[in-house]
Amino acid sequence: MRATLMYGAGDVRVENVRDPQLAEPTDALMTVSRACICGSDLWPYKELPAAPTGRPMGHEAIGIVQAVGAQVRSVKRGDLVIMPFAYSDGTCTFCEAGLQTSCIHGGFFGIGEAGGAQAEALRVPQADGTLFAPGTAGDDSLLPSLLSLSDVMGTGHHAAVCARVHDGAAVAVIGDGAVGLCGVIAAKRLGAEQIIVLGRHPDRIALAREFGATDIVTERGGDALEQVRKLTRGYGAHSVLECVGSEEAMTTALQLVRAGGAIGRVGVPHYEEIAAGGPMFYSNITVSGGPAPVRAYMEELLADILEGRIEPGRVFDRVIALEEVPAGYRAMDERTALKVMIKP
Amino acid sequence: MRATLMYGAGDVRVENVRDPQLAEPTDALMTVSRACICGSDLWPYKELPAAPTGRPMGHEAIGIVQAVGAQVRSVKRGDLVIMPFAYSDGTCTFCEAGLQTSCIHGGFFGIGEAGGAQAEALRVPQADGTLFAPGTAGDDSLLPSLLSLSDVMGTGHHAAVCARVHDGAAVAVIGDGAVGLCGVIAAKRLGAEQIIVLGRHPDRIALAREFGATDIVTERGGDALEQVRKLTRGYGAHSVLECVGSEEAMTTALQLVRAGGAIGRVGVPHYEEIAAGGPMFYSNITVSGGPAPVRAYMEELLADILEGRIEPGRVFDRVIALEEVPAGYRAMDERTALKVMIKP
Repeated sequence: MRATLMYGAGDVRVENVRDPQLAEPTDALMTVSRACICGSDLWPYKELPAAPTGRPMGHEAIGIVQAVGAQVRSVKRGDLVIMPFAYSDGTCTFCEAGLQTSCIHGGFFGIGEAGGAQAEALRVPQADGTLFAPGTAGDDSLLPSLLSLSDVMGTGHHAAVCARVHDGAAVAVIGDGAVGLCGVIAAKRLGAEQIIVLGRHPDRIALAREFGATDIVTERGGDALEQVRKLTRGYGAHSVLECVGSEEAMTTALQLVRAGGAIGRVGVPHYEEIAAGGPMFYSNITVSGGPAPVRAYMEELLADILEGRIEPGRVFDRVIALEEVPAGYRAMDERTALKVMIKP
Repeated sequence: MRATLMYGAGDVRVENVRDPQLAEPTDALMTVSRACICGSDLWPYKELPAAPTGRPMGHEAIGIVQAVGAQVRSVKRGDLVIMPFAYSDGTCTFCEAGLQTSCIHGGFFGIGEAGGAQAEALRVPQADGTLFAPGTAGDDSLLPSLLSLSDVMGTGHHAAVCARVHDGAAVAVIGDGAVGLCGVIAAKRLGAEQIIVLGRHPDRIALAREFGATDIVTERGGDALEQVRKLTRGYGAHSVLECVGSEEAMTTALQLVRAGGAIGRVGVPHYEEIAAGGPMFYSNITVSGGPAPVRAYMEELLADILEGRIEPGRVFDRVIALEEVPAGYRAMDERTALKVMIKP
């Protein structure tokens, strides 16, 4: 089959690889109906050292189950399924607590043995715990939103949950990428009264407004801080969604949050430490977040998608074939595409 | 009147100072019935540079209102009151949110204009928002527990709340000082099933057990981690109460907490940064806490004290006169006293 491999920074290739096989009785095989490129894929795209055997890429997909191992009970051949970016057994203490990204028998797609989703097909470990069958016929117009549940919408939701967004809250969203925009959807869903997006890309800002952003701050640094203060009666935001992962974004988050507020961070951190000694302590700021247990959120968010209350699939602004994946990476890296959907 | 002043590290004196006066119509004057020495007073006791005019010390007290300014409505002359370590107006957005330590018109006793509580009397700014009248006749045996509400019990409770202690939780408490011990009381109150105290001082451990500690870990560093893992089926604690404030304590907290768990930190941090890039992110650890809004917790905790369900006043293991305060500091610094109560 055809699959995407990264051989180093900027070097993405679509190549012939061995077809995936069932390896464990808990596995499923799925063909990929839709996959996508993640903002987090851009980090290796910028930084990956030479990888002679190629790193399989992609961790978001929806698809059709082709075969299941002998122990798989919850999905069967022919089911449309959503694959979260992490696989999990669904039964361990962390899965039971809704933190599937810490599953004792789990792991992440595109890392280690598990294959990548930017491919024609994929082996899914721990299929019973991992895959979610939405039970819809899969109307094509729904697919982008279903696909968003594999990562980006669940991740935006996780940021909002970790930032303790609540009824009437003033929320600031750092990052106008797909996760940030899904964070806007999530904040609105959770009752935020004010949703301030820090961003400057006109198309993204327009979409943010449609998703529920009430204010846009295009300034950066101290000026951004001043604007957010003005918009929040001088207090800052109750909740800050840090959807970037850079040191600058985290520093900004700590500045924008009001005393007693919370920061939900979901951008893979490219910093080692945060300034936790001074204002974070004296103002009782909570810092929370990490890899989103999107599997835990699928059912809840699906209901809103099926009812038409949210349409996170709108973050996909380009559709490409599998062979075009290298160009898709380029487009996202150059920010000419917000989020690229792959139709293998 | 007599009051305690610190002139530099290790240099505590009880001296004659001008009697406090009402300065604002929102002030109250109170005589101090009981005050105490705080673990946080030991930081300046170790580190304060020479302070030629002397720094007024003490921020915990119960006492009797002697006079009130023209605008004070909630307390009157003769009332027994509990004074939290921070003063607050009780009406601003942060006070309304229960975060009186961030009050817009508030501040901390023993810093700036507000006097210290290790004295015969005290001016209390923002008396309506600050003082809490428990409405009891003030049976002498109750006074230590009432006094604990001015800081140490409320602070232990804040650590537990920030660490999200819940029914059935496995909790680790770092620090066997008075705050850590009150953290044990708080964790038990909030339903913890397992309360592991890291400490080694026999008297403190004995008290911790009486307060509800289920396990004691006397090891440090990697061995402590191994013990806590063993005690928690390999997972670590759901909640860690960091009641010290040292870099080592915070590092230990991040090691002891399980994936998805929370750290509540209330020890004044003597570190600038925390390692937030790696395990804290990938294991979805929440870090929360700061100066406890003890004013917000007084009513709830008082009820348990009056019903005899908790007895935090037992952390006071030495009672001294005001003139003996310098010896009291020495005893706490040398850890021969757990917490010193002052009877002016």
